Amino acid sequence: MDIEGFRKAGYAAVDAICDYYTNLSKRTVKAEVQPGYLIEQLPREAPSTGEDFATVAADFQSLILPGITHWQHGKFMAYFPAISTFESMIADLYATSVSNPGFNWVCSPACTELEQVTMDWMAKILGLGKEFHLEQGSGGGVILNSASEAALTAAIAARETALRELTSSEPGSTVSGGTFDVPDDLRAKYSPKLVMYGSTQTHSLGEKAALILGLSFRAVPVAAADGYALRGDALRKAIEEDVKKGLIPFYVIATVGTTSTGAVDRIDEIGQVVSEYKTISLHIDSAWAGVALALEDQRAFLRLDDINRYATSFCTNMHKWGLVAFDCSLFFVRNRKALNLALDATPAFLRSKEADTGTVIDYRNWQLALGRRFRSIKIWFVMRSYGVKGFQDHLRVGIDQCQQLSKLITASSSFEIVTPPSLSLIVFRLGGAALPADTLPAERNLLNTLLNNRLNARYDVFLTQTMLHSADQEDVFCIRIALGGRTTTMQDVEEVWAVVEEEGEAVLKEWRDQKA
Amino acid sequence: MDIEGFRKAGYAAVDAICDYYTNLSKRTVKAEVQPGYLIEQLPREAPSTGEDFATVAADFQSLILPGITHWQHGKFMAYFPAISTFESMIADLYATSVSNPGFNWVCSPACTELEQVTMDWMAKILGLGKEFHLEQGSGGGVILNSASEAALTAAIAARETALRELTSSEPGSTVSGGTFDVPDDLRAKYSPKLVMYGSTQTHSLGEKAALILGLSFRAVPVAAADGYALRGDALRKAIEEDVKKGLIPFYVIATVGTTSTGAVDRIDEIGQVVSEYKTISLHIDSAWAGVALALEDQRAFLRLDDINRYATSFCTNMHKWGLVAFDCSLFFVRNRKALNLALDATPAFLRSKEADTGTVIDYRNWQLALGRRFRSIKIWFVMRSYGVKGFQDHLRVGIDQCQQLSKLITASSSFEIVTPPSLSLIVFRLGGAALPADTLPAERNLLNTLLNNRLNARYDVFLTQTMLHSADQEDVFCIRIALGGRTTTMQDVEEVWAVVEEEGEAVLKEWRDQKA
Repeated sequence: MDIEGFRKAGYAAVDAICDYYTNLSKRTVKAEVQPGYLIEQLPREAPSTGEDFATVAADFQSLILPGITHWQHGKFMAYFPAISTFESMIADLYATSVSNPGFNWVCSPACTELEQVTMDWMAKILGLGKEFHLEQGSGGGVILNSASEAALTAAIAARETALRELTSSEPGSTVSGGTFDVPDDLRAKYSPKLVMYGSTQTHSLGEKAALILGLSFRAVPVAAADGYALRGDALRKAIEEDVKKGLIPFYVIATVGTTSTGAVDRIDEIGQVVSEYKTISLHIDSAWAGVALALEDQRAFLRLDDINRYATSFCTNMHKWGLVAFDCSLFFVRNRKALNLALDATPAFLRSKEADTGTVIDYRNWQLALGRRFRSIKIWFVMRSYGVKGFQDHLRVGIDQCQQLSKLITASSSFEIVTPPSLSLIVFRLGGAALPADTLPAERNLLNTLLNNRLNARYDVFLTQTMLHSADQEDVFCIRIALGGRTTTMQDVEEVWAVVEEEGEAVLKEWRDQKA
Repeated sequence: MDIEGFRKAGYAAVDAICDYYTNLSKRTVKAEVQPGYLIEQLPREAPSTGEDFATVAADFQSLILPGITHWQHGKFMAYFPAISTFESMIADLYATSVSNPGFNWVCSPACTELEQVTMDWMAKILGLGKEFHLEQGSGGGVILNSASEAALTAAIAARETALRELTSSEPGSTVSGGTFDVPDDLRAKYSPKLVMYGSTQTHSLGEKAALILGLSFRAVPVAAADGYALRGDALRKAIEEDVKKGLIPFYVIATVGTTSTGAVDRIDEIGQVVSEYKTISLHIDSAWAGVALALEDQRAFLRLDDINRYATSFCTNMHKWGLVAFDCSLFFVRNRKALNLALDATPAFLRSKEADTGTVIDYRNWQLALGRRFRSIKIWFVMRSYGVKGFQDHLRVGIDQCQQLSKLITASSSFEIVTPPSLSLIVFRLGGAALPADTLPAERNLLNTLLNNRLNARYDVFLTQTMLHSADQEDVFCIRIALGGRTTTMQDVEEVWAVVEEEGEAVLKEWRDQKA
């Protein structure tokens, strides 16, 4: 394709995307296809000679779009939103047009510097303390692929911090503030004893980070009475048990806005516990909720002061509720040197005169991989176009809709709210007056599983189930509605709720009929 | 921005990109800016109210482009190419327009299935055996962010394979083909003894994977006489030494096309060694060169038969020489179950009826993170537009240009080729007849460092240095020219070479003047 071919195909793509958004509400949320639908329609081998691009692009419409689950649809309320805005689409296109792997400053100075600037913008918007700002403190931010990568990266830095702490007074140690100088035998001695902690509500990214690093992850129980938030006492008990066994606690993931219910762990209590152990780093996973720190009136609920006081690192995803297209995960650390020490591997071909003199940041030492996309431009375009106020207004819409939905659920005789609305997330189930008081927990779960199956079988709504584990009662199966999508209107919310009620009544009728 | 606003801004972006490519050759390759150039020009905080999008987009031209190192420039010959094609830009735009995190099938069936199909396309184009095809064997491919991530992912799978192999006959083991059931105490017993291997020429991704996993990486020496390729005997010697010490070899990274010189490790010999140890997995890192397996006449050089015979996994990057914009790293495994076993962590909210019945692939179990971009559409658009023949033609251009450059260097009296051209990469240095035969290696390195500094100080060319470590001679500092860029013409090659000659003569003149 030559330049003029690109102009034509580019315009056509823009037009096609305009059509997509114009007609999006007429589509079902979920793809109405069965496994294998696309595999069956495509040739088993690539064509040997090139095809006309218009044909290729047309196949996106006819073959791909029918198999897309529309995360941008107003009725998408599963998982969490993964918003793409027009501003971030255009930003991403510009970035791809100058495609480069951005692993060090000289690779493209603009990539590195714009990331520095926009990460400081975001730190300020979210209210993170100066310790987390690149321009003023010893910390700073980097854009990673995902919150999973952030939790893993934080764990690696935490491990290095712990090993240095543990070995600095050991005979044979060469810790001197230099590079990787904890000797292998001391690493081998201590590493198998390292334990990380989260709660039973921690996102699977905690367990996965442990899997990847070959370390243990301990899921500390939470209680329904605490709103499924991790408490300091439970954490302390787990840590003390492990220390007695000779294990070494090194990393705690606290969640601000859990995936299941939006619970906010008690960072105040957790931070107090963690601060008693020199080997422990505290990572705050706020993948979904963290962007709401942009709202001053939510900062107490989200425990900003405690985060600023205790957190070693903090992560939130712009690519969920934050108006920036996937991927754009913000990862802030209090001590960038500790992070770099854990991740720096510099061969000759990656050296540059600027990095050697220490005048620039090489972001490859802030992440797992070498190469990286130019993602800060998405933040730059979105935050400038919306402005901080526009960003805040967007967040408030999802929160308001959730409050209104909460009233609808409360008003319903067949449903009950399981946990109070957390920002734009609400968790509910069949229950309340519709079920006799002596209905067993297992039966309640079964009824809600049946409801979930019915909802899953539909294509016009998309919600997610969750199972709540608690130390003080039996497991609770329930359903989540995650609002906050850019195109979601209150009418969408009401229509989805009507579907839930309809399916819920059907489940109850069948159940009553069976019993009768 | 509303839909019509996007149409306008989208057209404008397409036009701006057309202008960029029309005038690209008039720009210098490297950004002519000093550290801090952008930071100084941007406000310290995001604007509180939104700005007009045309202003924002204009700033991309006036603030960002001056700080971009132009990887798409015809004279970009540093590192390796990171090609962006118009086809992949448009593909990426479509993907972002339906932005979704694609972690399981139901998230968007099209994302998963198109990846399955295009990975099989690529396996066939590259000549990988059926074992690596998803449709026919026990293996298959997945798109990852980078070759670093692939090497790390392969190491994690290798560790799990080794631990299962080691513990299956231990008392207390519960290995039964199920999920993560190597007990923690056995993991703790064996993990610290695990060692991974590469050569001194292995990309830093090897050392970094070891850093991340907290395991040892042993860089086995290579010899200049072997063209800096890792030999079986050297690997065997290292492994046997370690086994004697009670260590456990579990993972070997062999490189097909090293970063420094394009050397191809002796997979035939390495494979033989590895096959003698049940605990060892063999990963082939062919990040740059692997796409050239599409050329039948290069398959012997790149040791395809040995790869097919011995490799546990194989990685090549489409986002280097392969015409697909960053990021798009192809990762193929022989045994997908072994990979999934090492990476599966499935909480309730990630379950789906399709995955539970085993009828679909959930790619989250093939990678480190949960979320993922819809990247297969870039391969689909590029391979269909170019066709296999067009793809091969593109590769041949870079190889031909390198052959011609090789002749220019050979004809020069002041330069010598250090290693023979490998595909589109050539490594050379000041030397040959220009230097007295008794010039010491250190002095030769110094002269070439001076040359490199001079080249680095220029903005119209961009090359990379490398230091070659060898068991049979002193370190050799040299300079690489990496061809293969989509816009690189033979005239670009000649002009860059003229610059190198000019700077080389200047270095030699200064040196002679000093000596005189």
